Amino acid sequence: MSVSKEELLKEASKWGALSLKGHSFYRGKIEVIPKCAIRGLSDFSIWYTPGVARPCREIERDREAAYDLTSEWNLIAVVSDGTRVLGLGDIGGQAGMPVMEGKALIFKYLGGVDAFPICLATKDPDEIITAVKWLEPTFGGINLEDIAKPKCFYILERLRKEMEIPVWHDDQQGTAAVELAALINALKIVGKKMDEVQVCMIGSGSANTRTAYVLMAAGVKPGNIIMTDSKGILHQGREDLEGTYKWDLCLKTNAEGRVGGNAEAMKGADVCIALSRSGPGVIKKEWISSMADDAIIFTCANPIPEIWPWEAKEAGARIVGTGRSDFPNQINNSLVFPAIFRGALDVRARTITDEMCIADAEELARCAEEKGLSEDHILPTMEDWEIYPRQAVATAVKAMEQGIARIKLSRQELYDHAASIIRRTQEIVKLLMREGLIRPPPPGL
Amino acid sequence: MSVSKEELLKEASKWGALSLKGHSFYRGKIEVIPKCAIRGLSDFSIWYTPGVARPCREIERDREAAYDLTSEWNLIAVVSDGTRVLGLGDIGGQAGMPVMEGKALIFKYLGGVDAFPICLATKDPDEIITAVKWLEPTFGGINLEDIAKPKCFYILERLRKEMEIPVWHDDQQGTAAVELAALINALKIVGKKMDEVQVCMIGSGSANTRTAYVLMAAGVKPGNIIMTDSKGILHQGREDLEGTYKWDLCLKTNAEGRVGGNAEAMKGADVCIALSRSGPGVIKKEWISSMADDAIIFTCANPIPEIWPWEAKEAGARIVGTGRSDFPNQINNSLVFPAIFRGALDVRARTITDEMCIADAEELARCAEEKGLSEDHILPTMEDWEIYPRQAVATAVKAMEQGIARIKLSRQELYDHAASIIRRTQEIVKLLMREGLIRPPPPGL
Repeated sequence: MSVSKEELLKEASKWGALSLKGHSFYRGKIEVIPKCAIRGLSDFSIWYTPGVARPCREIERDREAAYDLTSEWNLIAVVSDGTRVLGLGDIGGQAGMPVMEGKALIFKYLGGVDAFPICLATKDPDEIITAVKWLEPTFGGINLEDIAKPKCFYILERLRKEMEIPVWHDDQQGTAAVELAALINALKIVGKKMDEVQVCMIGSGSANTRTAYVLMAAGVKPGNIIMTDSKGILHQGREDLEGTYKWDLCLKTNAEGRVGGNAEAMKGADVCIALSRSGPGVIKKEWISSMADDAIIFTCANPIPEIWPWEAKEAGARIVGTGRSDFPNQINNSLVFPAIFRGALDVRARTITDEMCIADAEELARCAEEKGLSEDHILPTMEDWEIYPRQAVATAVKAMEQGIARIKLSRQELYDHAASIIRRTQEIVKLLMREGLIRPPPPGL
Repeated sequence: MSVSKEELLKEASKWGALSLKGHSFYRGKIEVIPKCAIRGLSDFSIWYTPGVARPCREIERDREAAYDLTSEWNLIAVVSDGTRVLGLGDIGGQAGMPVMEGKALIFKYLGGVDAFPICLATKDPDEIITAVKWLEPTFGGINLEDIAKPKCFYILERLRKEMEIPVWHDDQQGTAAVELAALINALKIVGKKMDEVQVCMIGSGSANTRTAYVLMAAGVKPGNIIMTDSKGILHQGREDLEGTYKWDLCLKTNAEGRVGGNAEAMKGADVCIALSRSGPGVIKKEWISSMADDAIIFTCANPIPEIWPWEAKEAGARIVGTGRSDFPNQINNSLVFPAIFRGALDVRARTITDEMCIADAEELARCAEEKGLSEDHILPTMEDWEIYPRQAVATAVKAMEQGIARIKLSRQELYDHAASIIRRTQEIVKLLMREGLIRPPPPGL
């Protein structure tokens, strides 16, 4: 198994060309349709004036009635200012729209969640916070997306504190949850324990930073984590980081006070989680050889991992995961975010806690384990649709345990609801395609 | 034909009860679904990463490409702060949600427009303006709804000036367009001319104020209009109105300087357009008797017209219109707004001008005329679905003539596109109902 950089670039360019053709053919990817019966125009007297005054009055009297009488219970916004879209950088809200629509499409198709793209014309952190708070009456949840660091930390923290609905930054929390799920199963295979492993983390952007905190909450000893940024290992002597979000990590991680670069950081580590910059060549084979036996390597940079998986294996890694679907062990947020929101929405959670992420990751890990773990199978794939209602149940149950759910439902009720709403979406798409109301793709797509 | 206030209130309460039941059964009225083919999860490489980077780059390079590659071309926001919802007053954004969802449903069902409700958590005019401007990258148009006066004038004016997409306040402009259409045909029946008639306007809220300006633009002589508010006729001696939005109307209308109340305002008028407060009894029979021969009376207060239609007829009115569907000549915004936006969106208009409203109204009037005008048939009904693509064409053609359209299309192209997109929505709803993906209404609904 081997592939050249040129072949991969050609492959990426193939998807790009198909994507341009597809987007131009369908002119976008989502639409807004009625979900209630319309037998004739006289039904507008029920759905609009004069009848609609009555549900309005009910909500005026009791704000919570909006969950029963409007679409809010299932409606989230996918909010971006377009400052860190994929690997494209700051391309702005307008140009970010295809990504946010794509995210909305996946939310609905895999999680049954009505997600709506909101691309903002401001990049100022406080203005983004204000904008999202003004939208609160419309939505049951907020998914922040592709917002640059460090403002993404500040925005998430304030919105989580100040809003009464769950706010989630998928690039942080979604990544953290799926990395944790992958790690749980990888550790089972190599027979190591979460609270004993040494974890090296290459890169300290928003994804790896949040992953570090979630790993700590999940049992990894903070002092056993060694993180790096472009200037080397994070430690208490990194005066350049005082006053930044990384300072807390300098204090909490790296108990031994190790210094140096990526080479030094990886030495002796049981696990390496890299979320840094597109490779190959960012991580060297000899660094992997210097790790502990049965090394676990997650190299998740896009579009190309920090080191090719076969090179990592040749250097002695036992388990390798990447962000790509064309290698084994794809570690992909899409395994998580539709389910996390399904669960949070179904119990009307006020927020999404780290504990809910961990419960979700444990259930995702369990789904893969039930089908048999191996070095090349540490996570399920998106094709296994049952992982979504199962994670939703795990997330919702944890929310109820933590007292942040507005309503209580049984596991069975949660599962049945999640499964039926997800199946319904997929049936709608199938039906519209069969009847030609979604046109067949153009030749070559 | 006669009906008591009690019977009408009972009727309204019946719709209210049905509406509550229906909203609770379907838990809201709109959903967000994929509109592109999804043959399997590998299509996510086209609709999401890695392919989606390519359309993003295209839009970064050329902002206008967003009209081809995202859903923006057909996407509008129905924005409200909930300060003047139906007859309910200031119930807030949250409680306004059922109305905004209902509006979105009608936009899609009658106009094929993807409309999304945005209920805001602020009531401050400048904050509303800021919020809407921040949303600009997402939407191809903005429909303001149920915002109190006088701030609605200021908000509309600034947004029309400062945004590059059409902004419309339906309570002002939609009402003005449909009133004009009704007047055009009523005048044909009685054989009077737009530039000769005396028009009395009872009430000077947002709807009647905008209607006054649109009537002037359509040929009514400003001096021939006599308007009233709760304190009487507007004239140049009304010092209480200096500095308010009504002052301009004091200067422009009422050339003869008439003073007094509604009784004096109606004397000798050819036309009376009332958009004031729920009746009956707001307009007296004797005032109608004092009007010119062949009097035209549009009494559009909700839920009950300013005078019962049969009383108006007994008092000598020749043509009577109301806002209600259970009397002849319903004068209803829903005849207009889905079509105005269909037309504006299809040529990517930068705004919606008064001239576009007038072109729309003229076409709407023509639709009714072709089926034969009579005292009881001055407007089409919503059941006649062809009125929507026809108005869309008229609106779009006027936008092209005025140089505010971003693209040019032929009348035939415009008609075909509008007709097919409207038909498609209605087919989708029918199909989903037939297949049980929209459940049948519960018993009694």
